[in-house]
This record gives sequence, structure tokens and C-alpha cells, in this order.
Amino acid sequence: MTDEAQPIPLSIPDVPAVDAIAEAAARARQAVLTKPPGALGRLEDLSVWVSACQGVCPPRQFQRARIVVFAGDHGVTAAGVSAFPPEVTAQMVANFDAGGAAINVLAELADAGVRVVDVAVDSDEPVSQAIGAHRVRRGSGNIAVEDALSADEVMAAIGAGRAIADEEVDGGADLLIAGDMGIGNTTAATTLIAALTGSEPVAVVGRGTGVDDAGWARKTAAIRDALYRARDVSSDPVEVLRVCGGADLAAIAGYCLQAAVRRTPMLLDGVVVTAAALVADRLAPGARAWWQAGHRSAEPAHALALEHLRLVPIIDLGMRLGEGTGAAVALPVLRAAVATLASMATFEEANVSDNSS
Amino acid sequence: MTDEAQPIPLSIPDVPAVDAIAEAAARARQAVLTKPPGALGRLEDLSVWVSACQGVCPPRQFQRARIVVFAGDHGVTAAGVSAFPPEVTAQMVANFDAGGAAINVLAELADAGVRVVDVAVDSDEPVSQAIGAHRVRRGSGNIAVEDALSADEVMAAIGAGRAIADEEVDGGADLLIAGDMGIGNTTAATTLIAALTGSEPVAVVGRGTGVDDAGWARKTAAIRDALYRARDVSSDPVEVLRVCGGADLAAIAGYCLQAAVRRTPMLLDGVVVTAAALVADRLAPGARAWWQAGHRSAEPAHALALEHLRLVPIIDLGMRLGEGTGAAVALPVLRAAVATLASMATFEEANVSDNSS
Repeated sequence: MTDEAQPIPLSIPDVPAVDAIAEAAARARQAVLTKPPGALGRLEDLSVWVSACQGVCPPRQFQRARIVVFAGDHGVTAAGVSAFPPEVTAQMVANFDAGGAAINVLAELADAGVRVVDVAVDSDEPVSQAIGAHRVRRGSGNIAVEDALSADEVMAAIGAGRAIADEEVDGGADLLIAGDMGIGNTTAATTLIAALTGSEPVAVVGRGTGVDDAGWARKTAAIRDALYRARDVSSDPVEVLRVCGGADLAAIAGYCLQAAVRRTPMLLDGVVVTAAALVADRLAPGARAWWQAGHRSAEPAHALALEHLRLVPIIDLGMRLGEGTGAAVALPVLRAAVATLASMATFEEANVSDNSS
Repeated sequence: MTDEAQPIPLSIPDVPAVDAIAEAAARARQAVLTKPPGALGRLEDLSVWVSACQGVCPPRQFQRARIVVFAGDHGVTAAGVSAFPPEVTAQMVANFDAGGAAINVLAELADAGVRVVDVAVDSDEPVSQAIGAHRVRRGSGNIAVEDALSADEVMAAIGAGRAIADEEVDGGADLLIAGDMGIGNTTAATTLIAALTGSEPVAVVGRGTGVDDAGWARKTAAIRDALYRARDVSSDPVEVLRVCGGADLAAIAGYCLQAAVRRTPMLLDGVVVTAAALVADRLAPGARAWWQAGHRSAEPAHALALEHLRLVPIIDLGMRLGEGTGAAVALPVLRAAVATLASMATFEEANVSDNSS
């Protein structure tokens, strides 16, 4: 039984392919709408992608877009890697719950719902029972010196993310967005991306919420230490999450892959979500066909992860907030793509001469 | 009276400055919202700009955004510069009126109104009396071989654009967008930009609605001929409009400058609108402070005009349709900027620790 010496750590259904027939129909319809072929640029590609995900042409406008913000603390903040104190994570969860954060404001404008999930906030009690229903532990371990999670915890966190995606899709969600909140989480996310892409820390470490030069040096050192700890597990995505990721990142990975399993299109956000998505596409190859990159953040590791996922961001506005905010700003652009393919007149309908005459 | 030998061609009021006090208040408020300073990237700058234009902090969300599409034909299409036949201009005006064009769909999604103005369509009659109320002539002249407009016509067209801006602002518009429709209009727009910036045609000529290689060569030759005809007038923006522009471009220039005169923020669209805006900022120096570039189009001359106006596009999606579509897709991003500054909680309100503690 030597061939089976390595246990399969997770039972993940195959990721379905997007619908090639709807995709072709959408591409053909774009060519007869009253505009020069290709003149809507990226909007045309996005509209075709939505058709392919929905399996229908013309596509339907999103009726229930849902943003799930995964909150978690990180023991690595003890190494002085962030500009903000760790108690801000719990304070911001309360701010999300009260509707005062950027993601609340942007989601309302984009007609999307917001749900916050306390996966591993380092507080005595979650802000509410609902928010804490999927809590895995109190903060993840300090990845510079110890594993982020136990073997059981990493499986629980991935499962929590998958369960949340199932809950949302079962509740009628037709577009999913992942967001993140957690002081120290760009340190863990950058470590994951560096580990999975074989990159040098100095090339990918960014400022996070705005750490100064000395803090950046401490962050880079912590990531180097974490990468050293993870040097033997980089080919196993679950082990990478366990050793140098965190419960929030594992949950986001589960959420991203389950969106694909459930045939639900998803907009990724910044470096934290995209790090988790990179793990998810390793766990469930092909999952990335169900995702678009909402934006390009100011974090260097984000660009690297997007390149590996072969995703091109929709907007590029120098944002670096997380919470799902970049995806929320991109959502109206995706809606615009859907609306043009769904509602524009064709040359024939409008009696407009095309360029083949 | 030698000093007054050159008559002043237009009487344009001074362009007011945006409100520096509201601008400073907006910048200060961004610093205390519950997010790391600067983390919303370009959204923060846009929100501050809206505050400065409105003279109030926090800014008000736009209640009446208005898109005016300026339609006109161009005699230069006789030189074979476009992939589409000239009758498409009139057909598309009817399509706008019927609500089937891209701009109709995108405007509805962005909660903006659309008005189409027939400035110089080459048809017997305008689509309706309202649409034709500002018609200056039937098509502009073939700029490769003759002036686009007479001296009276260029003044009438600029005046029409200014009158339309006045009508819209008097009707309650709090954000203006300019759009364009006209087969051949990228040829005239590119000529204007090349004339005003002293550029070589080959460096700036694009594909417009998708002209092939032979058509591109004809377009470049026509632009070279038009630039030669305009060689002695390039320091006079009105003369440039008259000799190598067009009635639609002159009207858009009037509309853009009057938006600034009336203290109304404006989103520019693609190469045609931005060419007219470049003229408008020469006519009314400082007008550009009231504008943002909605998007970067695929037309090479567009990037050049934006650079001269020192405007950075909000989105960059490879669009090249005109009609105001790029600005319409950018409008939700501008709304997002306003919403964050207007509605997010401050650190104090939300009891969140800031990074100075």
C-alpha cells in the first residue's frame, strides 16, 4: 500500500467547467449588438464570462450578491508587523455589524449584502452568536515561531468556509465576494503566496495597513522565518495553510473553492483573499474559472498571486483596505457588463447598418 | 489700436476655483474614517475633489447626473476613414432615442439621465424637434480639403454647448457627462489633439470603430492634410475647431467649459470628448479643475490629451465606443468615493483604535 501512504486530506468534489455553449452564444450576441465589435473592451469579456457561469445567454443581472467578510487575528502581530494594534480586529467586526465600515457603505451602493464571520478573532466572546457560529479558535498561531493551526483546526476552518458558501448559495446568492479583516493578515497572506510561488520575501512584502520602514523590516523577517518553517510542505496546500497561514485564510480558501463547486461566480478582493484563492485553486484545480479579480491592490504579493491565477483585475485604484472593498467597487462594473449583453439592441432590432455592408 | 487688432472671439466668464476650505475639510475627514489613512487609494482623492467642487464636506451623493450625447457627421468620411457608413450616425441617434444603445443601458444602471443632441447630423430632418433644437448645420466639412465650419457656425456650436450645459444645470444637474456619436468623429478629434499638442499623426491615429489597415492609412493621410490646413491657426482654439474640428466637437467644448463656469463637476469620456475638453481648457484656463477623466480609451490620442490635461483616468477597460459609455461605467466608482466620505464611521464614532495610539 505504499502508493496510498499519503492520505488524501480533503474530499472535494470535482470543479465543474463553465458552460461552453452559453459562452459561445454570448460571444456571438456581443457581435450583433449596436456597437463596433469589441468596442466595449473588457466589459464584453466579463459579460461572456457571466453567461458561461450562469449557463444562459443573455445573462441575468445579479439579484443577490453577497459579501462575506472573514475576520481573524494572527499571533504574528507580536512581532510588530502591523501599524495597528491587534484589538482593532474585534473593534472592526463590531463596526461591520453596526454598518459603519467602508465595506458596508460600498456594498449598499453596489446592492450587495454583507455578512461578517468571526473565524478566529482573539477576543473572549464573538460580537454575536451568529457572527461567532463558525469560530475555529481564538487567533491563529504566530507563524514566525509556531504553526498557525493544528491539523484538526485547518480542516475545521476549510470546512467552515465551504459551509458558509453552501449557506449563501442555498440562500439564493448568485454572486459571491470574499472579504477579510484581521490585523496581521497581510503577513500571513504574503507568506502563503511566497510559499506557493517560491518567491523571495523582500520581493513581495508590502506595507499592509501602512507599517513604517522598521515595521516593514520586522514583517519581512517574520515572513522569512515562517517560510523557513514551511520549507518542506510547500507542495501541500493544506499543510501550507496549517503551518504558515491561519484560520481565516483557510476558511476563505474553502469558501472560494466551494463557490466553484456550486457553480457560483465570484469576485476576488485583495491580497488576503487572493492568497486564499491561490490555495483553493491548488486544492480544487480549475476553480479559478469561476472567479474574476475585482481589483489590483497596492500590495506587491497581490500582483504575483493574480499572475499565477492568470486573472486580470477589473479596477486598479491603489486600494489596500481589504474587507472586500475592491471587489465591491468592481461589482458595478461587472453589473454594467451584464446589463449591456442583456439589454442592448441588436443591429437588426434597431435598424442600424453594421460594418459588413 | 494695434494691441487690439485681434478681436477677442468669445466672451467667457472666468472659471471659478474649486473650494479650498471644503477640500481641506474633506482631506481631514478621510484621515479619521475607520480605515488606514490612504487605504481607499484613488477613491479618497475623488471624494476630496467632489467636496471641493460642491463646496461642502461631507459631499452630497449625486441626485441628478446627466449625460448629453452630442451627435454630428463629418465630411471627412468621404475619404474612407471609418469602418462604418455615415448613415449610422442618424440611425444611432434613433437608437439612443429608443433606449437601445450601450449608453442607455449603462446610464440606467448608473442612475443617470441621457439626452441626445443633434448638432450636425447629415440627415434631412432631426429624429425629433427636441433632439434637433440645437442643430448648427448638416454635417461638418471634410477637414482634409475644406474648413469644418464657417466663422458663424463655430460660434453657434460653442454657444449651443454652453446653452445645453446651462439648461442642464438650471434643471438641477449636479454632475455632467459628455458623450459623442458620429461616424468620422475620431478623425476630427485626433486632428484637434495633434494640432493643439504639436504631435505627428502616425503617433496618435487609432482604429476608431475598427478601421482596417488600409483605412487606417487613409485616416492618417486625411489627418495629415487637415493638420497642414490648420498649420497657421494652432494657437487659436476657436480657429482650430473651425478649420479642422467640427460642430459636435465645438459644442462639446462649449459644454465642458460651461460646466466649469457653473461650478458643476464633470466626468469626461473618450478621445472625442477629451479632444473637445482640451480645446475648452485653452478657451477657459483652469476649467480642467472641474473635470475627472472617466476612463482611458484604446485610442492613442486619448492618452496624449489626458496627459496635457493632467488627468488620470478612473477606469481602464479597453473601451472605445464613445457615447459617454466610459464615463458612465466610471460613475459608480465616483459614487463609491462620495459614499465612503459621506457615510463611513470615524474612529471615534466606532470606538476603533487608530494607529497613533
